Formats: sequence, structure tokens, C-alpha cells
Amino acid sequence: MPTAFALSEYAARVSDVQRTMAERGLDALVICDPANMYYLSGYDGWSFYVPQAVVVVLGEAQPYWIGRPSDRNGAKLTTWLDEEHLQSYPESYVQAADVHPMDVVADLLRRRGCAGKTIAVEMDAYYYSARAHAHLTRHLPDARWQDGSLLVNWQRLVKSPQEIAYMRTAAAIASRAMDVATRSIAVGARECDAAAAVFQAEIAGLADKPGDYPAIVPLMPSRERTAASHLTWVDRCYGPGDAVNVELAGCYRRYHAPLARTVVIGKPSRELEALGEAVAEGVDEALGTTRPGVTCADVEAAWRRAITRHGFVKDSRVGYAVGIGYPPDWGEHTASLRQGDNTVLAAGMTFHLMAGMWLDTHGLEISETLVVTPSGCETLTNFPRGLVVREAG
Amino acid sequence: MPTAFALSEYAARVSDVQRTMAERGLDALVICDPANMYYLSGYDGWSFYVPQAVVVVLGEAQPYWIGRPSDRNGAKLTTWLDEEHLQSYPESYVQAADVHPMDVVADLLRRRGCAGKTIAVEMDAYYYSARAHAHLTRHLPDARWQDGSLLVNWQRLVKSPQEIAYMRTAAAIASRAMDVATRSIAVGARECDAAAAVFQAEIAGLADKPGDYPAIVPLMPSRERTAASHLTWVDRCYGPGDAVNVELAGCYRRYHAPLARTVVIGKPSRELEALGEAVAEGVDEALGTTRPGVTCADVEAAWRRAITRHGFVKDSRVGYAVGIGYPPDWGEHTASLRQGDNTVLAAGMTFHLMAGMWLDTHGLEISETLVVTPSGCETLTNFPRGLVVREAG
Repeated sequence: MPTAFALSEYAARVSDVQRTMAERGLDALVICDPANMYYLSGYDGWSFYVPQAVVVVLGEAQPYWIGRPSDRNGAKLTTWLDEEHLQSYPESYVQAADVHPMDVVADLLRRRGCAGKTIAVEMDAYYYSARAHAHLTRHLPDARWQDGSLLVNWQRLVKSPQEIAYMRTAAAIASRAMDVATRSIAVGARECDAAAAVFQAEIAGLADKPGDYPAIVPLMPSRERTAASHLTWVDRCYGPGDAVNVELAGCYRRYHAPLARTVVIGKPSRELEALGEAVAEGVDEALGTTRPGVTCADVEAAWRRAITRHGFVKDSRVGYAVGIGYPPDWGEHTASLRQGDNTVLAAGMTFHLMAGMWLDTHGLEISETLVVTPSGCETLTNFPRGLVVREAG
Repeated sequence: MPTAFALSEYAARVSDVQRTMAERGLDALVICDPANMYYLSGYDGWSFYVPQAVVVVLGEAQPYWIGRPSDRNGAKLTTWLDEEHLQSYPESYVQAADVHPMDVVADLLRRRGCAGKTIAVEMDAYYYSARAHAHLTRHLPDARWQDGSLLVNWQRLVKSPQEIAYMRTAAAIASRAMDVATRSIAVGARECDAAAAVFQAEIAGLADKPGDYPAIVPLMPSRERTAASHLTWVDRCYGPGDAVNVELAGCYRRYHAPLARTVVIGKPSRELEALGEAVAEGVDEALGTTRPGVTCADVEAAWRRAITRHGFVKDSRVGYAVGIGYPPDWGEHTASLRQGDNTVLAAGMTFHLMAGMWLDTHGLEISETLVVTPSGCETLTNFPRGLVVREAG
């Protein structure tokens, strides 16, 4: 299986990271976010439940991958790195009380001449635990430590043509999976069977393109559970009048295109219908505002103006940058479509415009994955916008 | 949807944790591991991509859940806690550069009188980042900090009858999903379609019991990729002679039963056949040794004696405690079936006996989920043990 990108694209990514490192006075960067590891090295395995890292050293063309011995073959098969850049820690370091894999990462940094230098770590990455940090810093007492959180994430914000092509495939998978979801939600169907059908569609992908596993499972709360934003399915069958918030994604070569809709069986309540109209209008106005030169806050303001007209309020952000993801998240943690975010949009940025409203007793979601184009934006996902009404009979 | 356990079982869990806290001189315990949060509070949502915690205070009967505002409804719907024990941090704290949700957890601890007391945190939990720890400790400069990693996990080691019942259901789902996997791996089938069928089976569950999402996706590397332990599927169709390592799980109410087999299409090579015989024999001998009173290391030694007779060596552990799980792992991170682990087995403990061999060019996996019984052990998973040979035609 060839790597997802040409060697030149990986090399450019590494040298762009090194340029930022040089600007910030960093000699080395220890990356534990699996999405950033994938972005720089191509490494793709479900091994982030044990400590692992990609280490970028200033002045070295190739980063180092370091992980568990039984995952080194996986690194050999998935990364573009030379064998000498694939390192491992002893198996006995896995979930041990006295030693930690970061002790071995410290040794690698020492061998590369970084013991007394400035080293950045991703302080807020999911898999860089407080204990990992304590071990790494204890073993390199002469290093100066900096927070390198989001350094690589910000570089991922503008996508290359190849990345956008992958997201386009992911979006086609998402649109197809949403079609399966809306057809599976029917009176008498078990919630788990509808969820199973969505999973199946996400992974089967397209006729000529396999799906990859999304970083988040299909979220499909029904009835009163639609008032919460991150619930899954429960042990019941759908009934007449049920509303279901479906949030899913297509994923292709680790690039995501999320898509959300609310499905209602039978005639929606007046409240839900009114909410659906407000949200759809808000999404339309946000999309109409999205173009190079405006800020994330401008897009949110357009959304907010629309729903305010309808008497609704939403405190949480209305979207975020999206792309590569591993559990637990497909968001990039950089630009958010929210008040105060003055990130200026540029062509090639990709966002999940996520208009989720969670009120006291019910909720509703309409979302799209979009790419900023030279003159505006294009929604990559493709599914009729608005509340999805299924026949109850 | 009622909580998964009786209130009395949750209350006993909390008071058992508090007994350990008192023994260790801890006044408060901040829990960020979603499996531990679920164990104590019942909270079940895919919200661990933002900081959240369950806080146990000595002398208080109910712990506190604290999370994002839009997830508080989810906590209301899934936990056994009173509304006053469900707290949230401001939405603006989500992925913000200056503030962190742990600032608000610090305020909660202060309000509960813990500012100058001894507080334990889970230093090595996946979702307790180095930055979370820095914020929490900075806001409570007078507290004494202890590492509470695995305190709750160790308490989870021996399962209650209700927990074992859930794992039995999970195991039935796993066995069914393995049947689907072995039937889906066939010449000409796309790898992603076989994976999609496994996902579908995991989530659809049994006729009367819905599947829940396992903490790890189906791992299904084929051919040379079987030499690596954590790879998924790729863009190809299976062909004659292919071997596929299938590692999957059933999950029911967050309790897992993993199961692994290697499937080969057509006649296996002599090497693979020999490896399969050695591994099956090792698994049998490990199972024959497993009973109350022996240690984890004893079980591993029985396994190792068997494969040594066949000329094989395995450095990594041959299993681990299993139960509740959220991505990225279903393992409990406590007892491991490996040299030097002197944990004494007791009835009610549950393990994933995972005999995975990853050699230079190929690998093989046979695993079972077992429960230690008063007189020995019982495998909960149920699938013919050994290399699975599919007809090539």
C-alpha cells in the first residue's frame, strides 16, 4: 500500500514545521497527537493506546517514529521513513509502574544532541499524559521546555489539492451513509440496527474507494436524548413521532467529512419545524458569508443574526476546522467558527459547519463539511438541507 | 433508559473507592478516564474529546460530574447523580488558549473544602493531558498532589455477577461477529466490505440485545501486514493464500469481550500451520493453569513453556484484565499476563488471553475472553480455537 501522499509532500510538511520551529527557537518537537504523527510520517495504526511519538529535530530531514516493538512493523509498512528512523522502546515499558516509554524518547533526544536544548511538547494532546510529561522532563533536566501544542495543527489548516481530493471522497461516503441512516430510521426498527447500517456504510465506502473508520462513532440520540450532544443509540425501537439527531462522517485515508441531520418520523412538532427552519436559514447565511478574507467570527455572526431573528440562541461554536482525525476527535482544534476567533479564512481551509442546537427537551442538528474556495465556499457533503421527515406509516 | 446497575452497586463502588482513598490519605480524587467515570457515575457519552471529570470527595456520598454545558443533559440522562452534582464549565473554555476546563474543576475542589488538602489525579489517563495537570495544580497551589492512576482500575479487577452477565452478552456478540468475519473473508471480497460486515455485526448485537461500540475498531491486517499488531484494512480484495488476523470485540453496556483468530484462504503454509498449532497449545495450557490462587506470571509461564517446546518466543504479554472500555482501549491497565506480574487470580476476574505472535513476515492471533471461576476458568467467547481455514474456491 503506497503512502497517501508523494514523498515531496511529506518533505515539505516536515520542512514547514521546521521553519516554524526555527522561528520559535525550538530545537526539537515531540509529537504525540496521532493525527499529527500521521500528517508528518504517514504512520497509521491503532496503537495510540500505548505511548508513541514522532520526533522532529531541527536540521534533520526525516523525523523519528518511536513506539512499541510490535508496532514497529506497522511503522515500516505505513510510513515513508528509513528503517533507522523507526525506533522502539522495550516491551517491558508498556503499562509499567516504574519506567515509561518517554524515558526512551528522552534517550533519543539526548542521542540527537538535544539534551541541553529547547524542546517543545504537545502539552494538550490527548495521548500526552501528565505522567508522560513528568517522565520526559525528569530525564532531560537541562532542556528548556516549550508548549508546542497545535504547532502542527495550525499548519494543517490549509489543505493541499490531494488532501481536498481525499476529503471529497470522504464527503461522498458521508452523504451515502446519511442516505442509509435516513432510510434505516423507521417505525419498529431497532436503534442499534440503524446504527449498524450507518457503520456498515461508513466502512464499505464507495464502489471504488474503501471507507476508513471515522474518529467518532455515529451519534444517534433519539427523543429526549436529542437534547444532549454526544449520545449514541439505546435498547429500543423507533416509534411514530421520534426525532433522531444523526451525526456521522465519511473517512478516507484518515481525512474526514462529517455530516449531521435530524430525522423525524411522521409529522414534526411545530417547535421542531420552527427550529429546523431557523437552523437551515442560519446555515445558508453562514455559507453565504464564507469566503477568503472574512474571519471565523464573521461567519458565526452571520449564523447568529439569522437564528436571533427566529428567537434562538446558541452559546457553543458553530463549527471548526476539520481534516485528519483519530479517536476521539476529527476536529483540528485550531480555528473555530465562534465569537472572538479572528482567524482569516483562506482558500483550501476546510470546516465542519456544525449547527447543533440542544435545548432543554429536544435538539436539532444540520451540518456540512465545506472547503473555502478562491471566491467563496463549496459544500463537499451533499444531502438535502433541513429537517428530514420520514413517513410514519 | 435505566442505569446499567442498581443504585446500591454504584453506592458500593463509590464507598469502596473512598475506603482506598482514606487508606492512602487522599481527600479528593479527580477522575478523567472515561471508563472510570462510567464505572462510578454511569456517564456514557462520546464527549471525552473535551476535558471532563468525575470528582470523588471523601465523606460525600455522591461524586460530581463536571463537563461541557452541552453534555450536561447527557449526564442528566445517563448518570445516577442528583442535578446539583452535575456541573459544567463555561462553553468559552473549550479549546481556548488562555483558560482550561481544569480551572473550573479547581474551583469545585475549592468549594468542597479541598484547596489545602491531598488531591489525587490520574497522571497516566489518556484524557488527562499535561496541560490539564498544569492548570489544575496552578489553581490550587496549597494542595498536596498524589498520583491516583489505576486506583479505580484496580477496584474494577473483580467483576460482580451483573458485570459478568454483561460480559457474557458481549462475548456472544463477539462470537457472532467472528463468524461473520470468517464468512466475509473470501477470494475477491474487498477488505473494507469484510470490515464493514464485522462492524455491522458488532453493533447489531444479538436478537434481543443491542451491541454497543467497542473501544477499538476491528483490526484486520492481511498478508505481510499480519506481521504488525494494530493495522486495519486496506484498498484491495482478498486473494488465494491470504492470511488475515482478525481482532474484534463484542461490547454490551460498555463491557467488552475481545476475540481474535487468524483466517487463511486456502491451504496454509507449513510455517503458519506450525505456528497455529503452537499457539493453540499454548492457549490451552494457559487456560488449564488459570484458577484462583495462581499468579498472572504462572499463567504466562504455562503459555511460554508450550510455545518454547515448539521453538517460538514471544516478548509481549499474553493477556490483560478486560472490562469497561472507551476508545482507545478496552484493557484495564492493571493485571497483565506476563513475567513478573504477581497478581494473584481470584474468582470474578476477567482477562483477554491474547496469544498474538508477530514475526518478521507474518503473524498469527488466537485469543479468548475468560472469567476466573471458583475452581478454574471459563471462556466466555465461543469460537473453534485454532487457525481458521477457508476454502479458496
